[in-house]
Amino acid sequence: MGVVLNLENGKRDQASIADLIALTLADMGRVNELILSKAGSDVEMIPEIANHLISSGGKRLRPMVTLAAAQMFGYFGEGHVKLATSVEFMHTATLLHDDVVDESDLRRGKKTARMIWGNQASVLVGDFLLGQAFRMMVDVGSLDALDILSAAASIIAEGEVMQLAAAKNLETTEDEHFAVIKAKTAALFSAAAEVGPVIAGASRNDRAALRSYGMNLGLAFQLIDDALDYGGSSKELGKNVGDDFREGKVTLPVILAYRRGTPVERKFWKAAIEDNQTSDAALDKAIGLMKRHRAIADTIGRAGHFGGIARDALAPLEQTPQKAALLDVIDFCISRVA
Amino acid sequence: MGVVLNLENGKRDQASIADLIALTLADMGRVNELILSKAGSDVEMIPEIANHLISSGGKRLRPMVTLAAAQMFGYFGEGHVKLATSVEFMHTATLLHDDVVDESDLRRGKKTARMIWGNQASVLVGDFLLGQAFRMMVDVGSLDALDILSAAASIIAEGEVMQLAAAKNLETTEDEHFAVIKAKTAALFSAAAEVGPVIAGASRNDRAALRSYGMNLGLAFQLIDDALDYGGSSKELGKNVGDDFREGKVTLPVILAYRRGTPVERKFWKAAIEDNQTSDAALDKAIGLMKRHRAIADTIGRAGHFGGIARDALAPLEQTPQKAALLDVIDFCISRVA
Repeated sequence: MGVVLNLENGKRDQASIADLIALTLADMGRVNELILSKAGSDVEMIPEIANHLISSGGKRLRPMVTLAAAQMFGYFGEGHVKLATSVEFMHTATLLHDDVVDESDLRRGKKTARMIWGNQASVLVGDFLLGQAFRMMVDVGSLDALDILSAAASIIAEGEVMQLAAAKNLETTEDEHFAVIKAKTAALFSAAAEVGPVIAGASRNDRAALRSYGMNLGLAFQLIDDALDYGGSSKELGKNVGDDFREGKVTLPVILAYRRGTPVERKFWKAAIEDNQTSDAALDKAIGLMKRHRAIADTIGRAGHFGGIARDALAPLEQTPQKAALLDVIDFCISRVA
Repeated sequence: MGVVLNLENGKRDQASIADLIALTLADMGRVNELILSKAGSDVEMIPEIANHLISSGGKRLRPMVTLAAAQMFGYFGEGHVKLATSVEFMHTATLLHDDVVDESDLRRGKKTARMIWGNQASVLVGDFLLGQAFRMMVDVGSLDALDILSAAASIIAEGEVMQLAAAKNLETTEDEHFAVIKAKTAALFSAAAEVGPVIAGASRNDRAALRSYGMNLGLAFQLIDDALDYGGSSKELGKNVGDDFREGKVTLPVILAYRRGTPVERKFWKAAIEDNQTSDAALDKAIGLMKRHRAIADTIGRAGHFGGIARDALAPLEQTPQKAALLDVIDFCISRVA
């Protein structure tokens, strides 16, 4: 494969998840097999839709985190493969439902499932994948892992409703916004990381460390995502600059620019976000205002803050290739805007 | 309360679930408390929507079946209350998603949640309730019960996709149709019944008996529902005669009338179901054709067939008030069209 493991603990030239990929390569092969088998159904539309999303080029960060977190505590068995697959299915189900809720046309540059098969099928196939995720977890037989992942499923949905209720509300405070992204994004990263030590029978402290790592990584990840939408230099996301703006999403760059803006600027934001005045010229102006108020830079700064917490969460743990690889993920997420 | 238990095993004057209600009264009080508490959230929209559906006057047959099935095998504890609540939440989540998928305006004579709060919130609150259902199951700690209920969640979603894929297909065979209603309706009744003996630690045979009872009760229930839509004499459902017809649903009365019809009649059915020609006059004609071909009577007959299997499933079990009450449910379901 030509993948070279870098086991040194020194600085890398460039933040990369190459080590994580290499460490989880064999296990991810089994995850991918399980994905194909558990997304299967005699009802043809189910594998069609599931494969459309599953093959759409996501990085599969979440299942890799689960696998590495289990390996890190010496787990040998098959349970981590099933839990990693469950995590990816929960994520895929969320994407299917999100695209319906957000009325999105594109995801990672491809047509969304709802544009090809309709909203109805997207809702139902999401339900199916969620059901399959639970079956796989039950199959593993760890009530602790079930507890963590089922709580995450509730929390994610709660976060999505929270976001819907706060939609287009420019008065959303930064804390309220963190509560939303903590629930809708970070909770799954947190659960994905924690079930690793759980299934490996690791200590309470180790569980807490991985839980905190995942939670803060998830927060950083989402904030960088939100910054990228207003033009990080990289286009890793496969989404176009301005997608969030055109959908009237109140993300942190918007919240900061709005709160720091003049009364005239706030009128501009209201027209854009509340009244959908989101032409290309308006987008340029929005980015200009964000730069003036350091809204994007500070969003990235906040992501760095959470990234630091994630890093410290793992600090007490023994140096292992898995730990190094998980630390790389933090840098990788944040360097997407570098 | 004035509820009188009829413990005699003789015939009742009228099929009724009064005994089931009386036997599960105390437990249902706790189910109702748990419903309110677990549908709670700081995100106001969640309890609003959940309560809208939960208070909409459903009979709560499924949780009562779970409770009675647990009592029947001498279960003492709290687990059956949590499992019964989980079952009701799974059902409620399905209704929320169904109404979105079917674009329904009314349910039991009330506006659907999606008409009041929108499709988006209905999808997400359904997801939340499903997540909460899993958390409660996990809390009970029975991996067998988890296995049964998580499998049901997948199967229900699969059945809904199957139905969507077969939508408006008048060539659907009776067997294919049974496969759909088995998955989308009967699987949850089956799981609701089976988790009773499971949590009570009953034997493999007892589990199989209750599973079969629930599956066949569910099939009978759905078929009677489908017959009522073309005018059983009772209006128990709170839905209007002709709702399925106007939505172009291919239910058993339609399948039978279509298969038994002349070429000219089939053209009528195609115009109605495929091209939405569903005026009141068309509905009258549809009912007339069903009567001519005994389509409604035979749908009820099929329901009776499954009801009989459900009855025999319980035959080997000891005579208990719970068993008598569960047998009553079969008669009650079928007598709705009497």
